[in-house]
Amino acid sequence: MKKILIVGGTGTIGKEIVNALKPNNEVIIAGQKHGDIQVDITQKESIEQLYQAVGKVDAVVSAAGKVRFAAFDKMNDELYRFGLNDKLMGQVNLVLLGLAHLNDAGSFTLTSGILNRDPIVTGSSAAMVNAALDAFVKAAAIELPRGVRINIVSPTVITEALDKYAAYFPGYESVSAARAAQAYVKSVMGAQTGQLYVVGN
Amino acid sequence: MKKILIVGGTGTIGKEIVNALKPNNEVIIAGQKHGDIQVDITQKESIEQLYQAVGKVDAVVSAAGKVRFAAFDKMNDELYRFGLNDKLMGQVNLVLLGLAHLNDAGSFTLTSGILNRDPIVTGSSAAMVNAALDAFVKAAAIELPRGVRINIVSPTVITEALDKYAAYFPGYESVSAARAAQAYVKSVMGAQTGQLYVVGN
Repeated sequence: MKKILIVGGTGTIGKEIVNALKPNNEVIIAGQKHGDIQVDITQKESIEQLYQAVGKVDAVVSAAGKVRFAAFDKMNDELYRFGLNDKLMGQVNLVLLGLAHLNDAGSFTLTSGILNRDPIVTGSSAAMVNAALDAFVKAAAIELPRGVRINIVSPTVITEALDKYAAYFPGYESVSAARAAQAYVKSVMGAQTGQLYVVGN
Repeated sequence: MKKILIVGGTGTIGKEIVNALKPNNEVIIAGQKHGDIQVDITQKESIEQLYQAVGKVDAVVSAAGKVRFAAFDKMNDELYRFGLNDKLMGQVNLVLLGLAHLNDAGSFTLTSGILNRDPIVTGSSAAMVNAALDAFVKAAAIELPRGVRINIVSPTVITEALDKYAAYFPGYESVSAARAAQAYVKSVMGAQTGQLYVVGN
């Protein structure tokens, strides 16, 4: 039994990660507004407070982070920086600030997404941020101390989100949130590190 | 004959890009301190001034941008943001602000590097930034108007820089700056778009 902090555990994928891990583990759900405890991953103080409140954990899972979608001719410095600040540095800071609160041989599992591998119109910020996260994980894995592991899950569009996103993803095969959640289970309960778990393609 | 703006044209790779393109084109060299004209790519106003001064061009090449190198346990939010602000958004802003100054069927050619594909200790920021750039180019390519193209060159460690960097790249085969420069020539003078030109591996 592991003590697992799931940031974004109230979201579409997050709920299914909770469902998959809760039966055999102690799960703490962090959300922006709901869950067991609240956190704003764009604020370092908020992340620090989260870790102080939760104490030592065996795993930190993040299924959190936002980017802006817009046609390329509408994109600007500010819109790219929104995603860099939120989905990218929010998750990176969960790692940087969480390391001291992670037990030996603990794990981080972050979330990117398909759009760097297979871009869509309006998705250049998502592509940028997802790729940055994938590479951060690959690079951080070779330097983490105490047997701490780090992996990332990169799902395609989620079936439960198709009502909102279908028009942006023509011809993309969706995967269910429950199927995506299994990649997080593999990361947390397995032993690999530096892995990019692609779900769907 | 094309009119080509080479940002970072005074650097190790930049000089060889200039040498390769100058015989058959009109080349304008932009550098931080030297070259035909000065630019600070971290300042949008400086980029705007550069484009105003240079006028319409057929190609913008960037071999510019810095990141911080540090052991993972010494990395923090600020050090990652340095690279996001400089090498990543500096080059992205060269594209966003340069598009209106690029002739139809013109091209952008940016620079990333090997460290997202093959990470080294102290290189997690470089990995993050390089991957973000590679993905930005791939995504932007499908949305650029007027036949404008965009590619990126990702060289391994450069032979001429080994005196400074050899210790960080154990076992990495270097490539000469002149060899790397040929990938920029391919991007500018060729017709492909959305390409990642890897030089060395």
